[in-house]
Amino acid sequence: MKADDLRAGVRGLDTTGPVNDRASLRRTNLGLVLRLLRDAGPRPRTRLAEETGLAKASITSLVGELVERGLVREGETERLGSVGRPSRTVEIDGRTICGIGLEVNVDYLRLIALDLRGTTLADWRRPLDTRASGPDAVLDHIAGAIRETRKTLWDTGVHTVGVTVAAPGVIAMGTGVVSYAPNIDWRDVAVTEGLRTRLGPGAPPIRLENDAKLGAVAEYLVTAAAVDIHDLIYVTGETGVGGGIISDGRLLRGSAGFAGEIGHMPLDPTGQPCSCGRRGCWETMVGLAALLRLAAPADDPVHDPTIDLEQRLAQVRHRADAGDPATRAALAQIADALALGLALLVDVLNPRAIVLGGYFAHLADHLVDRVRSELAARVMAPDAGRCEVIPSKLGFSAAAHGGAQVALDRVYQDPSGVTADKG
Amino acid sequence: MKADDLRAGVRGLDTTGPVNDRASLRRTNLGLVLRLLRDAGPRPRTRLAEETGLAKASITSLVGELVERGLVREGETERLGSVGRPSRTVEIDGRTICGIGLEVNVDYLRLIALDLRGTTLADWRRPLDTRASGPDAVLDHIAGAIRETRKTLWDTGVHTVGVTVAAPGVIAMGTGVVSYAPNIDWRDVAVTEGLRTRLGPGAPPIRLENDAKLGAVAEYLVTAAAVDIHDLIYVTGETGVGGGIISDGRLLRGSAGFAGEIGHMPLDPTGQPCSCGRRGCWETMVGLAALLRLAAPADDPVHDPTIDLEQRLAQVRHRADAGDPATRAALAQIADALALGLALLVDVLNPRAIVLGGYFAHLADHLVDRVRSELAARVMAPDAGRCEVIPSKLGFSAAAHGGAQVALDRVYQDPSGVTADKG
Repeated sequence: MKADDLRAGVRGLDTTGPVNDRASLRRTNLGLVLRLLRDAGPRPRTRLAEETGLAKASITSLVGELVERGLVREGETERLGSVGRPSRTVEIDGRTICGIGLEVNVDYLRLIALDLRGTTLADWRRPLDTRASGPDAVLDHIAGAIRETRKTLWDTGVHTVGVTVAAPGVIAMGTGVVSYAPNIDWRDVAVTEGLRTRLGPGAPPIRLENDAKLGAVAEYLVTAAAVDIHDLIYVTGETGVGGGIISDGRLLRGSAGFAGEIGHMPLDPTGQPCSCGRRGCWETMVGLAALLRLAAPADDPVHDPTIDLEQRLAQVRHRADAGDPATRAALAQIADALALGLALLVDVLNPRAIVLGGYFAHLADHLVDRVRSELAARVMAPDAGRCEVIPSKLGFSAAAHGGAQVALDRVYQDPSGVTADKG
Repeated sequence: MKADDLRAGVRGLDTTGPVNDRASLRRTNLGLVLRLLRDAGPRPRTRLAEETGLAKASITSLVGELVERGLVREGETERLGSVGRPSRTVEIDGRTICGIGLEVNVDYLRLIALDLRGTTLADWRRPLDTRASGPDAVLDHIAGAIRETRKTLWDTGVHTVGVTVAAPGVIAMGTGVVSYAPNIDWRDVAVTEGLRTRLGPGAPPIRLENDAKLGAVAEYLVTAAAVDIHDLIYVTGETGVGGGIISDGRLLRGSAGFAGEIGHMPLDPTGQPCSCGRRGCWETMVGLAALLRLAAPADDPVHDPTIDLEQRLAQVRHRADAGDPATRAALAQIADALALGLALLVDVLNPRAIVLGGYFAHLADHLVDRVRSELAARVMAPDAGRCEVIPSKLGFSAAAHGGAQVALDRVYQDPSGVTADKG
């Protein structure tokens, strides 16, 4: 955990406004204390005062307000050193507060709700033919899912403070509009506006973000930051191939929010046709369609869209485990093509780690070793620029997970917006 | 200018240590005042106090020390508003202080010395067959150039506070070693150690950095920051193709300093052989050799290495201006291949601008329009992610220019290290 990130809050996803009056200073300090507890763990007030540079009296008042709002609680007594008064530790509570992440994918919706401690309160996936349904019907489904989840949680005393929708497309920063998403055939779909209209007044704040960017945030928070990795590229293999870049502990968004579009890198001018209208994009080499095409003939059940994707991937994995030559050859070809594009990204960005998500994570046992050795051979910097290749632990849930965390981030930015009465 | 950058100093090139005692706090504050004057221009003490949050008495003492060290001077009197005491403005002086940037290229050495106000005190280029000479002879040349320039400047009352050597290769952060530079055939060359040995005790601090990274810093400071562009990619066309990335006002170095290696992006598996041993790297499509190969037959004088490169490029330009079909076709092909790789980088990084350096800048009139339209057609985000394509104003001098600025940055980090007696 870096002090700069602590002050910056959500590590590039958002920014706090200027501190220009007493009330906003108070909000800033409430957020500072809450983020310190999130990132550095439970600690006594005296230590909070030392680490934030705030006066002890201020810490007492701030902690009091956070307790009142149900965000922290005072825990066990800890004696500092061998002398002095024992001091009670303060820790994140937030069991009554949740954020929702909702991922729209090509063939499913996935919803995850997390409370402020990171505990999963809801997690489900529902099949949905997103492309065939069209944006309006999909927004109806999403609005229904939000309404229903919010109600269920409310009935157990939990207040939803925000929702982040993850979509597999190009999204201009802060617009709430999917500009272009070839794999679900969306163009200029106003997602947040559509949901606000459907949900009416009183709905929680809704944000829209690219799925792979949210996946990168989740991987960073769940896995990488804990082992002091602050530069990573998250690469997710699904129908499309998406990317999210964490650079020096911050999500790299670029000047207008479009950074991370890695699926259409033109790596073979004579390659397969792509959904974007061109040929030889990286996605045509390593996307889900490429895996299935290489691994099995067209009449094989792994191509059957009516069978759940995870089941089909389990079948591919089973065949590879059993040594099936065609499946193994397909995975070797995928690993080589994966390393080709990853080496390019490592040359450009020199990350400390690449996290492989989506189907790459499901088949990691059969991909990672070969990707590592090919990467070492291809990257210009010595030792692949010291970059590790790590399979995601979150798999297909990363985008929804990151979405829930971003929704909760509101609380860390402005704890004063949360009321303890679930209101 | 962003307040965060101001505090971070050299925008990603360096970091200041923790403030853990009174002396280091003083150094930090001296640097803060000096950087504010650099980035925001001359201003009265009262405004310095407001903008830094430091007490007026502290500002008086800090400005006093900076004047004593020859870094700032008190200028014209400015009346704030219609009432109140008139206040003298404080501005950067630093005429007696310089930084040196020295670029090692495939066929020349280039040296630029800048004083603290950015005035050029020395600027020359000398032909050198770097590859044939070998590292030892090249280090001899560099050491000679540093010794000579330093002596000449000293004789006019100017003190050299640092030297940055720019090299066209892969350099691990902070090592002073060129790991790998295929175009000059260097492997594991310990540049800073070799120069320190040659220059002996009393030599100014010497740093080593990748040439394109330094070019990016120069372009950012000279051109982009002034028009509020804080995300850019600098792409330089020489024998190799190098890149430097500025993201949110900071040089993106990656986890070990290797970021920005864009010349070997594998864009065509059946393409031309590359100096790195593979085929179809971007460099083989848009590097200097590709331009000359496409533009003229092998016996044409533009291929003659004994003629100065800028003269040969002037010849190519002259032919294109005159409408020579072969030259125009070559430049169109270069523009298309340039856009192919740039579109990839724009998809990944979504910069606000691409700055074209090296020979691309020399031939910009014949490249930029076509690059812009191809980019608009290729980039996944709408309107090419709002990315502008800008020819460098610094051309082949960008790396040395950036090197001199990085050398001067020492002063901005720790003004207390500078003595007014040139010593």
